[in-house]
Amino acid sequence: MTDDAQAAQIPDVSLEKASRFVAASGFVVEEVTATSVRGYAELDENHHPPWGVIHGGVYTTIVESAGSIGASYAVAERGEFAVGVHNATDFLRPSTGARVNVEGNALHQGRTQQLWEVIITDSASGKQISRGQLRLQNVPMPEGN
Amino acid sequence: MTDDAQAAQIPDVSLEKASRFVAASGFVVEEVTATSVRGYAELDENHHPPWGVIHGGVYTTIVESAGSIGASYAVAERGEFAVGVHNATDFLRPSTGARVNVEGNALHQGRTQQLWEVIITDSASGKQISRGQLRLQNVPMPEGN
Amino acid sequence: MTDDAQAAQIPDVSLEKASRFVAASGFVVEEVTATSVRGYAELDENHHPPWGVIHGGVYTTIVESAGSIGASYAVAERGEFAVGVHNATDFLRPSTGARVNVEGNALHQGRTQQLWEVIITDSASGKQISRGQLRLQNVPMPEGN
Amino acid sequence: MTDDAQAAQIPDVSLEKASRFVAASGFVVEEVTATSVRGYAELDENHHPPWGVIHGGVYTTIVESAGSIGASYAVAERGEFAVGVHNATDFLRPSTGARVNVEGNALHQGRTQQLWEVIITDSASGKQISRGQLRLQNVPMPEGN
Repeated sequence: MTDDAQAAQIPDVSLEKASRFVAASGFVVEEVTATSVRGYAELDENHHPPWGVIHGGVYTTIVESAGSIGASYAVAERGEFAVGVHNATDFLRPSTGARVNVEGNALHQGRTQQLWEVIITDSASGKQISRGQLRLQNVPMPEGN
Repeated sequence: MTDDAQAAQIPDVSLEKASRFVAASGFVVEEVTATSVRGYAELDENHHPPWGVIHGGVYTTIVESAGSIGASYAVAERGEFAVGVHNATDFLRPSTGARVNVEGNALHQGRTQQLWEVIITDSASGKQISRGQLRLQNVPMPEGN
Repeated sequence: MTDDAQAAQIPDVSLEKASRFVAASGFVVEEVTATSVRGYAELDENHHPPWGVIHGGVYTTIVESAGSIGASYAVAERGEFAVGVHNATDFLRPSTGARVNVEGNALHQGRTQQLWEVIITDSASGKQISRGQLRLQNVPMPEGN
Repeated sequence: MTDDAQAAQIPDVSLEKASRFVAASGFVVEEVTATSVRGYAELDENHHPPWGVIHGGVYTTIVESAGSIGASYAVAERGEFAVGVHNATDFLRPSTGARVNVEGNALHQGRTQQLWEVIITDSASGKQISRGQLRLQNVPMPEGN
């Protein structure tokens, strides 16, 4: 299967088509391969809890999105997609707002499970803000898809 | 310090005042004590990724919110708040949409760190959908607060 | 299948039959059901790293043992056992030595995966020293077993 | 402070001086710097649970040892050492026995906390068997040390 055909198997992940919650996370996907995902997000007061720094859930959500998109892409050609079973995200530095780079990589891709790592970096300083691991299970696509 | 005075020290966590991302998560806080947080969320297609089940980031975000609110409340009277350092959330059952109950409890409250558990349950079936642990660090409130 | 027949399907987990590493952990199993494991360990300088408190690996190992034994017992009657895929253990209080109670409980038991929680408590004070979660995958027993 | 002086501040981590549990893990430290730890272990039936593959606790214990030694080395010159607060280890491939390489690296070194990653690889095949992250807190050395 070509990369294009493989890509055709995964749904549109653009922000324009995203649900309210996914859109609010702000994560923009720029590149997906079977072992990596790359993108960015503009984080600001739209992502704050009441106490003025970026909500940790923004980072966990980006880890979840990036890992799920990459892992699902990786198994699309065999009629499967990947669902997260465990998301473990560390918060390394607080930020009040930043453009962040998102870089996801497969750490392990087994027959039934995958493990992805996602690193979120302040684009300006190059420092890591957060990093997480997502464990996923490969499952058959629903009939009719 | 009375409970009211303690409550006065933590910011307004109502959805109406929430940022776009926090509001999109849909988590409504009903009760906060120094060792527990209780609330709910109505989850539907506004919380979907492109593939039609509730996005795992919604659960990780609720874990993050509930743990942070409870842990910050617990140390507010000594002039501190609590920031998440590690969020580990398990996804137990996929859901296409549900009213979920959220129940957070402190597992450990040390001088410098806290560990909270948050359990997210389908209100109709009573089954757990997701559960997570949030490790937090107690830090001094910024001057002027 | 009776409990005895089910028990007959899981290997001898007594310390006397244990390998050097497992024996060194000191974990004694007292009771196993399909949803719980109970036991204890006597921890002392035999479990120290060079710096004089119980090595965290003792707790992670007990979490691993307790979770694996309980989860394997739970699926033995359908010809499966359970292998750990992710062990996440929190260390709550340092200890120089103690008799600890070990209490494991199934948090989730799905068709292909299980999630167990194991709590390790100082028998004298009743305080939690460590607690962990073990995610396991159910796999078929090797032929001939 | 020279590297030698710094090394003098951390205790002897050789297997010969190790407690029964630490010795049973088999982890041999070959090199320690302020941001890395390198070593190996010979794993065999001495590390088995009753069901014939290397016990996951061996890997979690190696992650704990490597992370603790490196992180403690890193802060020794300021009169601190580092204690693990959360150990999260993934098991990627079962093994019945192998010589494994152990490679630990600091992911984050803050004023009060550190995050280390430890990767355990089959020396023969070069494949990862297990990998873990250890979060540690920097604490003052006891008086008199």
